[in-house]
Amino acid sequence: MSESIDAKRRVEDFILRSALMIDNGQLEDWLGCFEDKSRYIVIPRENKERGLPGALMHCDNKARLTDRITCLRVANKINPHSDRHILSGSLITEIAGDVVSVQSSFLVVQTNLSGASILFCAGCYEDKIRLAKDGEKLVERYVVVDSFSIPTMLATPL
Amino acid sequence: MSESIDAKRRVEDFILRSALMIDNGQLEDWLGCFEDKSRYIVIPRENKERGLPGALMHCDNKARLTDRITCLRVANKINPHSDRHILSGSLITEIAGDVVSVQSSFLVVQTNLSGASILFCAGCYEDKIRLAKDGEKLVERYVVVDSFSIPTMLATPL
Amino acid sequence: MSESIDAKRRVEDFILRSALMIDNGQLEDWLGCFEDKSRYIVIPRENKERGLPGALMHCDNKARLTDRITCLRVANKINPHSDRHILSGSLITEIAGDVVSVQSSFLVVQTNLSGASILFCAGCYEDKIRLAKDGEKLVERYVVVDSFSIPTMLATPL
Repeated sequence: MSESIDAKRRVEDFILRSALMIDNGQLEDWLGCFEDKSRYIVIPRENKERGLPGALMHCDNKARLTDRITCLRVANKINPHSDRHILSGSLITEIAGDVVSVQSSFLVVQTNLSGASILFCAGCYEDKIRLAKDGEKLVERYVVVDSFSIPTMLATPL
Repeated sequence: MSESIDAKRRVEDFILRSALMIDNGQLEDWLGCFEDKSRYIVIPRENKERGLPGALMHCDNKARLTDRITCLRVANKINPHSDRHILSGSLITEIAGDVVSVQSSFLVVQTNLSGASILFCAGCYEDKIRLAKDGEKLVERYVVVDSFSIPTMLATPL
Repeated sequence: MSESIDAKRRVEDFILRSALMIDNGQLEDWLGCFEDKSRYIVIPRENKERGLPGALMHCDNKARLTDRITCLRVANKINPHSDRHILSGSLITEIAGDVVSVQSSFLVVQTNLSGASILFCAGCYEDKIRLAKDGEKLVERYVVVDSFSIPTMLATPL
């Protein structure tokens, strides 16, 4: 029990920190939250539920994810905006060795250069997080989005 | 003090779990979060504040609530959608024996079949939760809604 | 470590309580969350990041803040509404003596007298909170708002 409480604290804090990195534009730091062998997949809820593979973003290793961030930094033209993640708390569904499976509902508000904010996306992180001695790392993140007809464009990671 | 910390952890986790049951469409599991003698009342904030009884949904026992869920499953035509609850953390206001009174602000985002999301409802859960040895149960839930002119329809529970 | 866990619990609970005071219209109680020598500043994110001083509300002592609340109560005509704060969890960035620096993303939903709710504002509290033996007090609160083109009007505090 105390093990799971401790795990809960660590994963909640880690997920919170990693979300703030996106909101603060620290995308390279956010990349550092992932293990080398890790996956980051943004998938509509209806596809996930039916076992269909179609995803909005499918990075099945960290190199691909790194590539996305590099593109954002040096190549892509995107709508300038800032993100704000609001997290609902984390529910641990499994602890297997040092890897914790956890679900966290989230909502992202996007704000444009005029300072106008919109509800951009709602969904749930389905994460596998390794609790190593030297810190936490994402082994796998499924971003299961309710809002799959995302307004404007999915540029910065969710 | 440690008693109240422990209680806080348990109620936050319980409220989070029960909200995810709605979001995942596990309405029968959600029903199981209520004691047999329990109440579930969705009431506009202005009525609650003035002591007026008018409610959007008034289930003063579990049989009524069970009836609502059965109707949703087998009879009612509702707008197909998914829900996403975002919880703001829980504030314990009283501990009386094994029953904890707790307030939790919440927001519900609703997404239609086209994947478009809207802010559906904001409000506050005012709960009485029994912390029994074999788990937590809702004795009473007032869903005090700020947004009483609810867009579309109140079908799935808040 | 246990010190920081304890601090985290106290600040999260305190920030939650103070947000509920605004939502419940207990603005005088909310004022009581501030030390006599304290600051409350609502500033657009882009100004904060560039070190520009332009703020939406700049109360560099508690007397000024008290004045704002008194105006709200006895003088100002504002759009009647209720607020609902949704908090995302708090991240401690520094502990210096009994003062904790902490960041908490938030979102405010505003509801008018017809019961219609809108996303009013998203942003981040950047707080310095003193953890005294007799309770917690705000030494400084920067409300860094993403949504600086605030719809309608900024009347009640964020």
